[in-house]
Amino acid sequence: MAEQPAKKQRTHPPYELLYHPGIPGRGEFIRLAFEVAGVPYTDVANEDKDGGYSTVQGICMNSKPSSSDDNPPVFSPPALRIPGAGRGGKALVIAQTPNVLSYLGERLGLVPEDEGKYYVQQLALTALDLNNEVHDTHHPVGVSLYYEDQKEESLKKAKDVRENRIPKFFSYFERQLKWNQEDGKGKYLVGGKITYADTTVWQVLDGISFAFPKEVEARRGEFKELFEFYEGLKEEKGLREYLASERRLPYSMGIFRHYPELDRQ
Amino acid sequence: MAEQPAKKQRTHPPYELLYHPGIPGRGEFIRLAFEVAGVPYTDVANEDKDGGYSTVQGICMNSKPSSSDDNPPVFSPPALRIPGAGRGGKALVIAQTPNVLSYLGERLGLVPEDEGKYYVQQLALTALDLNNEVHDTHHPVGVSLYYEDQKEESLKKAKDVRENRIPKFFSYFERQLKWNQEDGKGKYLVGGKITYADTTVWQVLDGISFAFPKEVEARRGEFKELFEFYEGLKEEKGLREYLASERRLPYSMGIFRHYPELDRQ
Repeated sequence: MAEQPAKKQRTHPPYELLYHPGIPGRGEFIRLAFEVAGVPYTDVANEDKDGGYSTVQGICMNSKPSSSDDNPPVFSPPALRIPGAGRGGKALVIAQTPNVLSYLGERLGLVPEDEGKYYVQQLALTALDLNNEVHDTHHPVGVSLYYEDQKEESLKKAKDVRENRIPKFFSYFERQLKWNQEDGKGKYLVGGKITYADTTVWQVLDGISFAFPKEVEARRGEFKELFEFYEGLKEEKGLREYLASERRLPYSMGIFRHYPELDRQ
Repeated sequence: MAEQPAKKQRTHPPYELLYHPGIPGRGEFIRLAFEVAGVPYTDVANEDKDGGYSTVQGICMNSKPSSSDDNPPVFSPPALRIPGAGRGGKALVIAQTPNVLSYLGERLGLVPEDEGKYYVQQLALTALDLNNEVHDTHHPVGVSLYYEDQKEESLKKAKDVRENRIPKFFSYFERQLKWNQEDGKGKYLVGGKITYADTTVWQVLDGISFAFPKEVEARRGEFKELFEFYEGLKEEKGLREYLASERRLPYSMGIFRHYPELDRQ
């Protein structure tokens, strides 16, 4: 865990992130929220190498009518467990990445205090839609099939995502930066300080840069302000330390994969 | 518009749904929330046949740094416009289906007053994920291509979604009904009265029944409690009247499409 100021340690519950070990994945959006807020959390499967993943599986991947502690079932990780925050003083367990971010946003100070919190969630949901579309470039026709068994379809899907979808999303993010220019100065998407919209859009840009390096290199000039935002956020307090730490896991065979044949040729 | 009790008309702002005309689409999840809550709304593109869709396009499909009224840009419809609810007394415009449902949930009485509101959002997000996967059965490799140009890929994708994904989601929804048995009596997914989780899951079940009638017929016995919930909700106040009205639009060439070759053979 990152060292945290003692004050913050006392005012937050012991948050537990429940996710697969060894990959950034969708868990990364939640990690980034904690890291930029400077609030401690336990990454259960990565920190407890012995029994951590069994705990995650028991809560998030069971076939019972409850995840744990009388909470409803979870469709799939990531989930967040917060001892003491649920009904009757039990643990609260909630799932779905944008839902967890919405819960944490208000509690970690990562949203404006007014209606702006809906602008933040709107951006995060849209970035997560792009995240899903990029995932589908290597799994267009079968979630449970190997990439090698859907390679022809992947070539078509990746072409459509790179040529049509990525510029549409990038243009939208850039218009958002322009909308927020007065408050955000090109550094933030909503308001004058960091929100989980910034970290979520950043992570998707980072993953796409890993998956499609040639495509991104070719488009940097076209989306100059977006990539200035991307580079600038790496210097943000909390994020800089995190990216240099061992907690930041490398991309491998998760959502963002680098298959050279799917990139711009 | 449905007739509404005068009391409710006075206590709600004049909600405006901004969406494409003529199809249920993602706008339907928002329509259903208003209809079961008995709260008036204007379906801009469908009610104003002359200029309504121009208004939607001008707000949700422009290329400017703002949607309207100083709100940030919208990636795509649906969006919700609420005159007077934004900063400085202007209109608030928010987009992304689950974000709009989250906003409305608390204001229309469609979520529990405690942490249960996160259970509702978790379910709605998961149902909307299934909605997207079913959309992709007819557009697996190119959002901007015709179905006819990706028919071979669609056959593979539809097979995977019908055989692997639909039973996984249906099993999850059914476990949720079991979790809530004491409060919901099999009628509701969270708590003892209707929430937007119920309407959202219902709409996805309804759309899948249209798209894949043979698949659903074959699985009714396997997911008996889920289809009892589905049939039962049609009798819910607000929903029954709506389904019998002209406001309920037929499925056609939107998210849910009936291509017999993609159904179980």
